[in-house]
Formats: sequence, C-alpha cells, structure tokens
Amino acid sequence: MSGGLAIAGLGPGDDALVTPEVTAALAEATDVVGYIPYVARVAPREGLTLHASDNREELDRAAHALGMAAAGRRVVVVSSGDPGVFAMASAVFEAVEAGPPHWRDLDIRVLPGITAMLAAAARAGAPLGHDFCAINLSDNLKPWALVEKRLRLAIEADFAMAFYNPRSKARPEGFARALDVLRDACGDARPVVFARAVSTPEEALRVVPLTEARPEMADMRTVVLVGSSLTQIIARNGAPIVYTPRSAPE
Amino acid sequence: MSGGLAIAGLGPGDDALVTPEVTAALAEATDVVGYIPYVARVAPREGLTLHASDNREELDRAAHALGMAAAGRRVVVVSSGDPGVFAMASAVFEAVEAGPPHWRDLDIRVLPGITAMLAAAARAGAPLGHDFCAINLSDNLKPWALVEKRLRLAIEADFAMAFYNPRSKARPEGFARALDVLRDACGDARPVVFARAVSTPEEALRVVPLTEARPEMADMRTVVLVGSSLTQIIARNGAPIVYTPRSAPE
Repeated sequence: MSGGLAIAGLGPGDDALVTPEVTAALAEATDVVGYIPYVARVAPREGLTLHASDNREELDRAAHALGMAAAGRRVVVVSSGDPGVFAMASAVFEAVEAGPPHWRDLDIRVLPGITAMLAAAARAGAPLGHDFCAINLSDNLKPWALVEKRLRLAIEADFAMAFYNPRSKARPEGFARALDVLRDACGDARPVVFARAVSTPEEALRVVPLTEARPEMADMRTVVLVGSSLTQIIARNGAPIVYTPRSAPE
Repeated sequence: MSGGLAIAGLGPGDDALVTPEVTAALAEATDVVGYIPYVARVAPREGLTLHASDNREELDRAAHALGMAAAGRRVVVVSSGDPGVFAMASAVFEAVEAGPPHWRDLDIRVLPGITAMLAAAARAGAPLGHDFCAINLSDNLKPWALVEKRLRLAIEADFAMAFYNPRSKARPEGFARALDVLRDACGDARPVVFARAVSTPEEALRVVPLTEARPEMADMRTVVLVGSSLTQIIARNGAPIVYTPRSAPE
C-alpha cells in the first residue's frame, strides 16, 4: 500500500463545515499530524496514530509528516480553516523544497476548507462581497513595517480587509497601531467586525464603527474584518447586517 | 412552519467539497433559487421547487427569494463557490436594503462554501500562503480604471493575487490589459496559475511564468492566481508545486 500526504482544512470549528473530502481523508489515514487543538478535533480510532505538537513547530511537524509519508504511511496534516491561508500548506512545501529530492515525488494533496474570514463574513452578512485582501497581522514572520505598508496600500485601493492573527499576548501593540492607521485614513463610521471562534460554542460577533474599535476586542481566536468605503450596515432587530455592494461607482 | 432564507455556497463543483451544513439546508428547502447551472447541481425531489434564472438577474432573483421566504417558504439561494465572494450574498442584502422593512426581520443565513481561488490554490500548492488579495476583473459593475488602480496597488503591496471573472466573450480586452500591467511591474518569471473548473470533469491547471501568460488562457470558468515576488516553484515529475513562503524578509 503506497503512502501519501494530505494537507487538510478542518474549517473554523463546527463539524458541519468540514468537507466530505476531508472526512474521507481522515477515515483512511494511518497518521494525523498537527497543532494540539486541531488534532484534538479528530476522533481517535484503531489504526490511527495522532501526532499532536505545539505551535511554532510547523517546519519540524511538516518534515515529520513527509518522512512518514515517504515510509509508506497515509498521513493527514490538519489545519483549522483552509490549509492554504496562513496555515500548514506553505510550511509543508517549504519542507519539501529543503528536504531530500525523493520527497518531491510523494503524492501530496491539499484539501481546502472554510477559512476563518469567510466563516466570519458569512455570520456578519457579506462584508467581503467586493474586492478584498487578507493580511496576517502577526510580525513573527515578517517585519512590522511591511504589515503597515500593506495596510496603507490596501486602504488606498479601497479593499475590504480581513486580518488574521490580529493580536496575541506576545504582541499586543501591533493591532493597536493598525487601528491607528485605519482611523487616520478611513473615517469614523467604517464598519469593523470582530468575529471570535465562529461556529464554536465560544462564538462571539461584534460590529462597531471604527471610532469604537479597541485593541482588546481581538485575541488570537478573532478574525477582524474592515469594510471598504462602500460597505453598508443594515440596522434591524438583533445584529445588524454588514455587506459590501457588488458595484463601485465611477 | 416559519420561512427563512439560506444563501448557500455549493463550492467549486465536486460534491465532496459541499459542506454538510449546505447539504442539510438543501434537504430541508421548499425552494431553491439561482443561476441555471448552479440550480442544475441540486437533485430534484418531491416537495422541492427549483427556480433557475439567467445570469445578470441577481437582484430580481434575490427579491423573488426574499418574497418567498416572507411568505413562509424555506428558500435556499445557491451560488457556486462561497456566496460571500463575488456571488449572491451581496445581491440579497442589496435587495433587503431596498425592499420592504419586514424583509429585515427574516431569518437570513449565509452558509459559506469553498471559493474558487482556494480550490485553485489547493491544486497548485499554496500560492496564497502569505498575504493576498482577490479582485474581480469584470468591469460590468465598476469602472476599469478602478480595477487597474487596485491591480497597481496590489503589486506595490506585493500581495499574491486572485482574479475572478478574468475574461468573457463580451470583455476580451480587460485581462490583456491586466497582464500588461503585471508584465511592466513584476518581472518575467512571476508564476501565474490558470485554474479552470477545478474539481469538475473539465478541470485544467496550467502554471506559466508571466512572460508566457496569454489572455486566451483564461475564460469565464477560470480563476487566475499570480504569485507575490516571493512565490516559489518546486519542479518535479508532473505538475510543479507553486507556493508562497510564510515569511517575508526585512
């Protein structure tokens, strides 16, 4: 039986958002590899070995998974959301490029999932319904100056924006600076959506105008969406609807 | 029995990429509304009425769906991909905003799906593994000058890029101009992925350097991905792997 590697997206949390393709890959796996809380979402069964590892060990984890696949195991690397969006797929391919040549001949498949910004957008309405960008606000892997440059250009382009990893205990100040940049350029009323742990029991959604957005409204489980200049709020009983129209005028 | 409206993403084509949440909503629906080829993906059954309509009738379709939901029907509006990405969710909310006040009190849910760019990225490797943007290249709903402005700013920000609706018979020239803008700014080797009808029997994936990209490589069923300056190609037997590393240097 030949081995292989699937890099699978578990979606934002609810099993109803896991694709049948991913469910089938997990059912056939001999080994599941990933960050502890994501591996915890996979049900144990006979014949399946779960390999949970800590955060910030992505390259070691990727090499471990590739080595097992090369030895004939059927390995699934799990990410939350979509594996190709600020998740494990790039780490695995970095390991392939740096690794032994025979890793390139492995059967490696990426199985897409529902990424956090699209789960969050769905809950809020359709804030990403026109051109948009996705920026990882963590400066673990890039200089903060680049984050801020991208933010300013995205504002100038009038993209709606999704921010991943807006804030952690180790980097509390970056998101505060991002909010300052936004406030200088976007006007007080620009809608901001704080979407935490969407589709899990801890889900919390908050929609505020930019002037009321505060750094402490975000944590590592939050994705932040910022509207474009055209994004609308529909008031109603209960949570408002936030959407960006399909059209932009001349 | 009270009515409601779900705006559901069918993913890129393969049933294995439809979430269980969407499958459940379709199983409970009394009415399915959408563009002809998307409604054709829903299996007929007793008690379910299929309402297929032509393209470019999004607002009429949305109002029709909202009216049925207000009358107590359980309506699902179907989009391909994700309904919040260049699809029906914004059209429905535009209709809500313009419609009678009681439409705001309807139970309206957006059910996310696998959007075309993420299905395409998964097939190619992980080209969207770092900061990226999504631009609809159609100028049906916005001026071409705005498309080109966003393109130039996205290049300056060094985003990886996904282009939806790159080219149609009615607008053959826009994508050619977009390629000219890219060639002026990005260098000959920048990887371009043409991903057509991913996960369907007509799937075709082509990876070329920018200098070899031609307008006629895209049509309305193609999503085009363009790497950032850091996007890598891993050569191997068979299709190359295209990925963008997680890190950007100082």
